[in-house]
Amino acid sequence: MMASWNNNRKIKGVLLDISGVLFESGAGVPIDGSVEAVKRLQSAGLPVRFCTNETTMTRNMLTEKLHRLGFSMKDEEIFPPIPAVCKVLQKRNLRPHLLVHPTAALDFEGIDTLNPNCVVLGDATAEFTYHNLNKAFQALMSMEKPILFSLGMGRYYKEEEELVLDVGPFAKALEFAADVKAEIVGKPSETFFSSVLEDMGVSPENAVMVGDDIVSDVGGAQACGMLGIQVRTGKFRPQDESHPKVKPDSFADNLLAAVDLILQASK
Amino acid sequence: MMASWNNNRKIKGVLLDISGVLFESGAGVPIDGSVEAVKRLQSAGLPVRFCTNETTMTRNMLTEKLHRLGFSMKDEEIFPPIPAVCKVLQKRNLRPHLLVHPTAALDFEGIDTLNPNCVVLGDATAEFTYHNLNKAFQALMSMEKPILFSLGMGRYYKEEEELVLDVGPFAKALEFAADVKAEIVGKPSETFFSSVLEDMGVSPENAVMVGDDIVSDVGGAQACGMLGIQVRTGKFRPQDESHPKVKPDSFADNLLAAVDLILQASK
Repeated sequence: MMASWNNNRKIKGVLLDISGVLFESGAGVPIDGSVEAVKRLQSAGLPVRFCTNETTMTRNMLTEKLHRLGFSMKDEEIFPPIPAVCKVLQKRNLRPHLLVHPTAALDFEGIDTLNPNCVVLGDATAEFTYHNLNKAFQALMSMEKPILFSLGMGRYYKEEEELVLDVGPFAKALEFAADVKAEIVGKPSETFFSSVLEDMGVSPENAVMVGDDIVSDVGGAQACGMLGIQVRTGKFRPQDESHPKVKPDSFADNLLAAVDLILQASK
Repeated sequence: MMASWNNNRKIKGVLLDISGVLFESGAGVPIDGSVEAVKRLQSAGLPVRFCTNETTMTRNMLTEKLHRLGFSMKDEEIFPPIPAVCKVLQKRNLRPHLLVHPTAALDFEGIDTLNPNCVVLGDATAEFTYHNLNKAFQALMSMEKPILFSLGMGRYYKEEEELVLDVGPFAKALEFAADVKAEIVGKPSETFFSSVLEDMGVSPENAVMVGDDIVSDVGGAQACGMLGIQVRTGKFRPQDESHPKVKPDSFADNLLAAVDLILQASK
């Protein structure tokens, strides 16, 4: 079935989610047609940026993984939350207490973590122990004005056929315990999307985001004034077609079908 | 300073919090005057019940600890959440997936946990691992209509001079992840307080609760129609004197001072 949409905007830039759009989480192969789809966008001369809330590996490792799967992109075309939060920390003169994945921690190199005055929470997976959560909580309680950053706010994702907790639930736990509201860095934060658009030099009304997370990807992009396409891969569930809050500008069976729509709208 | 209050109700029954009122959490000695205070209430013939959200030991162990510290009470005068939730489980024909402290798990003996159709969350302390939280989350996600019980909703407590996370933050994490609202068993649940009042045969307008937690103890009791006295021991903080939501019927420096007030109002 050929996807179609009711869109009269001219598309000049494309944002793509990675996990669930380019490949299935945990799987070692690309989603059918996704390598070809990205190539078509690039050949058409459309700027493409890759927006992910991935915080379990460094940006370099992620680029290498994508290259191994057959995708072509530069390191700086990939936008994960850690480089973004590092800019915020430096700008606001903040020293983080980190509760993040040990591998991703490498991307914090050069960031001063002595005598912390904020907490940064990533998808720490097995590092989410009672001990480590207590340490992050105690750090917050020791601050006169506690500051908590959450790298995304995902509820869960699929890992080797099991649903596992993402960073969001742990951010909620610390919010409740320390009576603080987390600042989200990553999708669906408007600041995060804006920095990507700025990098492309494209205004939101000429940009489209393609994602598998109806709230974080599609809803987040639409809230910034972009178009949002929901793919039926990754964490997509049939209930998303009648989501109570988010109505995508289009659904597409996969990235390749989404790219068909986008290329039509880019001429 | 002699505490005083503006109360014209006749008190016929007393509910006491345990940790922070009878003894300081983690300490091996009673709070000054608290043994004497309980004795005075008992000598005056006032029914006394001990209401706690403690779920890191069995009720038996808690009774034994209190006896060692010099307090006199019967096992059945102590009301922790586990015996209460067990009644609920049996009444509603529910089989729990348990995420509780290994010691407290003994109080679930005889409860069918095969093929669970609900999740029960207690203060599991070090058992709050990423693995165990994922298991509880997956259990919720596998249920057609997920049911989550939280044994209390405390934010944190003091343990050996450190603030540590209570069950509440973990309940919030699972609520967010599985899109479910936890049913609280224990303070400040009205069902919980009502069962204690019923056991005493005292109506709420003739009962008083003494606690160190302004929201869970004092606010919870007041919401049920009881009087609530806040002691300045345990987790009391000076800010509680101007709490935005809860206004205790009286403050008292400690349980002994609170009992002075209560005995005056029982004649």
